Amino acid sequence: MCELMALSANVPTDIRFSFSGLCPRGGVTGPHRDGFGICFYEHGGLREFKDYLPSCQSAIAEFLKSYAIRSKTILSHIRQANVGGVSLENTHPFQRELWGKVWTFAHNGQMPIEQVPQPSYYQPVGTTDSEKIFCWILSELRSAFNADVCISQVSAYLHSLCNRLNALGINNILLSDGDAIFAFCSTKLHWVARKAPFGEAQLRDCDLSIDFASVNSDDHVSVVIATEPLTKNEQWLAMKSGEGRMFVNGESSWHDFGPEIIHKKSEPTKIAS
Amino acid sequence: MCELMALSANVPTDIRFSFSGLCPRGGVTGPHRDGFGICFYEHGGLREFKDYLPSCQSAIAEFLKSYAIRSKTILSHIRQANVGGVSLENTHPFQRELWGKVWTFAHNGQMPIEQVPQPSYYQPVGTTDSEKIFCWILSELRSAFNADVCISQVSAYLHSLCNRLNALGINNILLSDGDAIFAFCSTKLHWVARKAPFGEAQLRDCDLSIDFASVNSDDHVSVVIATEPLTKNEQWLAMKSGEGRMFVNGESSWHDFGPEIIHKKSEPTKIAS
Repeated sequence: MCELMALSANVPTDIRFSFSGLCPRGGVTGPHRDGFGICFYEHGGLREFKDYLPSCQSAIAEFLKSYAIRSKTILSHIRQANVGGVSLENTHPFQRELWGKVWTFAHNGQMPIEQVPQPSYYQPVGTTDSEKIFCWILSELRSAFNADVCISQVSAYLHSLCNRLNALGINNILLSDGDAIFAFCSTKLHWVARKAPFGEAQLRDCDLSIDFASVNSDDHVSVVIATEPLTKNEQWLAMKSGEGRMFVNGESSWHDFGPEIIHKKSEPTKIAS
Repeated sequence: MCELMALSANVPTDIRFSFSGLCPRGGVTGPHRDGFGICFYEHGGLREFKDYLPSCQSAIAEFLKSYAIRSKTILSHIRQANVGGVSLENTHPFQRELWGKVWTFAHNGQMPIEQVPQPSYYQPVGTTDSEKIFCWILSELRSAFNADVCISQVSAYLHSLCNRLNALGINNILLSDGDAIFAFCSTKLHWVARKAPFGEAQLRDCDLSIDFASVNSDDHVSVVIATEPLTKNEQWLAMKSGEGRMFVNGESSWHDFGPEIIHKKSEPTKIAS
């Protein structure tokens, strides 16, 4: 399995504090040592950083902990491989262009890859079930909608696709077109809202704290989404299985709790879709 | 205009020497200070590094000069904006997935963007003529061939597309699917073959030299392609206008000199295609 992290904010925001809490889980406090990736939407485009090395050892991760890149929309992932070898091609987040935007995707889950519906337009580069799922979701979107649609307009449709996948196996999902982040919880996903009045936050995975009041203005709002809470003294909300949620400009703008499906990790439910 | 650089090699190769010669042209010895990008095919995938800042000032470029990433296929670009603002979305190399591979593209040229044929499948994210050209080339490839084709099998077809573009304006092009690099010269492109017996090479743009004999084994072969020669004591070959060339595993595997077209920089020829 893997761990996911994302940020949505109303102004370009420095993710280094949260990223510093995620990285140790890639080999020190967690077993997710099969590579990491992080992508930043900024200046009208996207830049991504990836490594097949563990985030706790990667020189690129170390650089990113020291160099502030501010963005309103960030996706990140640390990997523990189950389907697909340890390589850059299998490292999340994945990206594809749809309707003149770069869409990105990170995934935590497991299902037999042959059960993932065959994508029609996009093809996986690597060998993960995750990338095949991403290609299928984007292919379905491309078939179903026009080029004028942005992600926050297709919340319910995305939610229905994710619920189809959720019946096939474990699928915790983060998907973005740069303007918003769609999150789907299959088994485990948390989020925390940060807004004034700000206080101090302490990471769970390393000895680091921050006083958000000293770095944020009062009108700054952000949401951080993560597989497991990154801090030990903030109010993280657990998403329910089957819940979909859209985050725009640092706030939750839409949600649907959907039907709950209980997954048995060792025996994914085999329901055709 | 911009400057291009690429490497093809038979074993994963450290590009830092050549990259150190390219970076000063992004604001010190050259005017190309509107961002840079470099992408490395490795471990079955691709990773890219981009900045909207000049390569001579970028902390990311500085990191890459100190951290060795070895790859058999590398594309890079430093930008001097003419069409499209200074932003990440307009920063080369661009990437798209085609037939389950990530294709990358870097471009040096200029043509009225409305003269670039409309791409059918891929859409530009940014506002450059370059990305529209890339989207058109990949769309044409997608329409003309099956999914089993790799870039070195479509040399002549790519060359014909580039010659169509060359009739519309200035188009120096680098295109790769990771296995090989296709280079097309419209006005200016050079390449140098490096193989045993190796000697010392001296950069033109900064006081740095390397003894390739001390870092390469005798069976190592590579080609570096660049808009202008990067070293002052190697035999760089100038490509002709209209010439297409394919580089695989550090060697030129195919070329066609094509029809020569003389470009007047201020008055691009207006020939419909």
